[in-house]
Amino acid sequence: MASSGAFTMTGGDAAYSYTKNSTIQRDIVDAGKELIKEALSEKFDLKSLGFDTPSTVVKIADLGCSVGPNTFFVMQNIIEAIELKFHQAKNQNYSALEFQAFFNDHYENDFNILFKTLPPSRKFFAAGVPGSFHGRLFPKSSLHFAHISNALHFLSKVPKEVVDGNSPVWNKGNVLNSSVKEVAEAYSTQFKVDMECFLNARAEELVPGGLMFILGGVVPDGISASETMGGVYFDVMGSCLKDLVKNGVLEEEKVNSFNVPVHGATPKELEAIFRTNGKFSIEKMEKFTQPMKTPLSPEGYVLAVRAGSDGLMRNHFGDESAEQIFKHFTTKVEENFDKILGGVRNNLNLFILLKRI
Amino acid sequence: MASSGAFTMTGGDAAYSYTKNSTIQRDIVDAGKELIKEALSEKFDLKSLGFDTPSTVVKIADLGCSVGPNTFFVMQNIIEAIELKFHQAKNQNYSALEFQAFFNDHYENDFNILFKTLPPSRKFFAAGVPGSFHGRLFPKSSLHFAHISNALHFLSKVPKEVVDGNSPVWNKGNVLNSSVKEVAEAYSTQFKVDMECFLNARAEELVPGGLMFILGGVVPDGISASETMGGVYFDVMGSCLKDLVKNGVLEEEKVNSFNVPVHGATPKELEAIFRTNGKFSIEKMEKFTQPMKTPLSPEGYVLAVRAGSDGLMRNHFGDESAEQIFKHFTTKVEENFDKILGGVRNNLNLFILLKRI
Repeated sequence: MASSGAFTMTGGDAAYSYTKNSTIQRDIVDAGKELIKEALSEKFDLKSLGFDTPSTVVKIADLGCSVGPNTFFVMQNIIEAIELKFHQAKNQNYSALEFQAFFNDHYENDFNILFKTLPPSRKFFAAGVPGSFHGRLFPKSSLHFAHISNALHFLSKVPKEVVDGNSPVWNKGNVLNSSVKEVAEAYSTQFKVDMECFLNARAEELVPGGLMFILGGVVPDGISASETMGGVYFDVMGSCLKDLVKNGVLEEEKVNSFNVPVHGATPKELEAIFRTNGKFSIEKMEKFTQPMKTPLSPEGYVLAVRAGSDGLMRNHFGDESAEQIFKHFTTKVEENFDKILGGVRNNLNLFILLKRI
Repeated sequence: MASSGAFTMTGGDAAYSYTKNSTIQRDIVDAGKELIKEALSEKFDLKSLGFDTPSTVVKIADLGCSVGPNTFFVMQNIIEAIELKFHQAKNQNYSALEFQAFFNDHYENDFNILFKTLPPSRKFFAAGVPGSFHGRLFPKSSLHFAHISNALHFLSKVPKEVVDGNSPVWNKGNVLNSSVKEVAEAYSTQFKVDMECFLNARAEELVPGGLMFILGGVVPDGISASETMGGVYFDVMGSCLKDLVKNGVLEEEKVNSFNVPVHGATPKELEAIFRTNGKFSIEKMEKFTQPMKTPLSPEGYVLAVRAGSDGLMRNHFGDESAEQIFKHFTTKVEENFDKILGGVRNNLNLFILLKRI
């Protein structure tokens, strides 16, 4: 898990697994279905991708896929949208289409459960690709489509200066306190570096004209990070950890050295990064709302958080302390639930379509 | 494990794992190194595979790869041989070559440990492909090279009639008794059916001119199956299980219903299957010897057997009985070690090179 700096969802299929606690992310995937269909209908040129030849194999990657079932819905949505496009274009190669789906996540991801839960009747040949999406994962020009949802906010590492006790930017006692300007800047700089690596790797791997779908929550321009979904989480978790130091459950040192490698970017920040990189054209950059199908409860919120961070907590604090953290966190979530719902309401989802130039 | 009929090596990296007990198979892989180099030097036509263009991505699959490290040596050997061929041909695209390595085994294979043990400095982009090699695994024309070692003797299932208590071919009380003609025929027929599926799938997946390396032990023409390495194993294990029925440790019913889905083919049998299938030319079919680097000991033999069948035994007999089986099996191996060494000496290794027509 976090030992290599890699942030993976909780594996297996037990009570706290991502497999059983990923309906919030599922809402994004479901909202993506129509967006992807529309994007492909408008922006996918069969000819320019060489898809007007009889032996057409379409290669699609889901980056940071974690375990199922969400990544399987993603793949199905993309394939349906491609088939629809072939159908609309009255392209006769439709019936001979074959799809190869690449499921990517860190080496530490639970690929065993991913493979065992693959839908038995599926339209694609499946492959798992281990490794960080901040580096190269595929040979040159070997992908037509890449998809990444709910994952681009993960950094390759916590910025060095933030964990350095001698640095003026040392983020002492805060999980992620964006109100400290220098700390926020260190995270933002790390995000720029990571995104440049991400875009350069994808630029090599996607064929010219290849498309990349990016979906996920961002920080709206003009509101403070602490009012967002992520910001509220860090405040509540930070306050939970501080309580446990006071109670003598956790050592202060352990809490001081705990940082989470994520960064919530703004749309402006993302756009600037894409333009500086220059290897993709920005075809779409749209806000979207995803209606929460199941109303969020404090219990559901805690389970979702745990599915994402159980391993991170266990690795840093140990199994026993992690249990106590999540127990106290549940109480804190109940006390602060209005604030949490406010953060959720402030969340801005973006659908971005990039085309390899 | 065996619940789906799939036969996988023992996962993880503990004492009985395949990762820690695969030196016998390693000897085959090592012997394969020179054979693959020679075969590629003679039979690999860069032009016919389209490898005379600047952007060359070479796609290689290892089928039935299990977990490392053997499959990593295999991949390294093939890549070195390809690079040598480019070098010999003074092909200027050598420096731009990229390799994509597909590691295939059953859904139940331990892909987590496979991925975590990938060599950090490797020349290929790695992907795991779950599923039986008796069916389609890859899109059409998406592979240049396929490799399979120590795996083709696995059947997709135990022949139906052999486990049917009402069938005259019911293999009552024998693990695999090839001295019963009808039983041997049932296994041989299943092997033909499985091989036809295997060859038809690979014929779709390999590009025209694509090469397939097959390495592994076969039964020499003209000697009885019971005198081979596999045959002796089945006799000793069968006798071990019968002892445990007598001692009241195992139920007779459980032993009667235990069968292992493998078939040791003869070179003649294999050649006939290739010719009937007709989709590949037989470019090479050579015997080879692999010097055992570590002299075989009874303990080493038991560990190797256990790495291959621990899961099969646990699934069929339960954890506790499996422990008792391997304990008694160790005694039986010590008593019969000369016979076992005789079987090993009778083992015939074949290197087969097939080319997709």
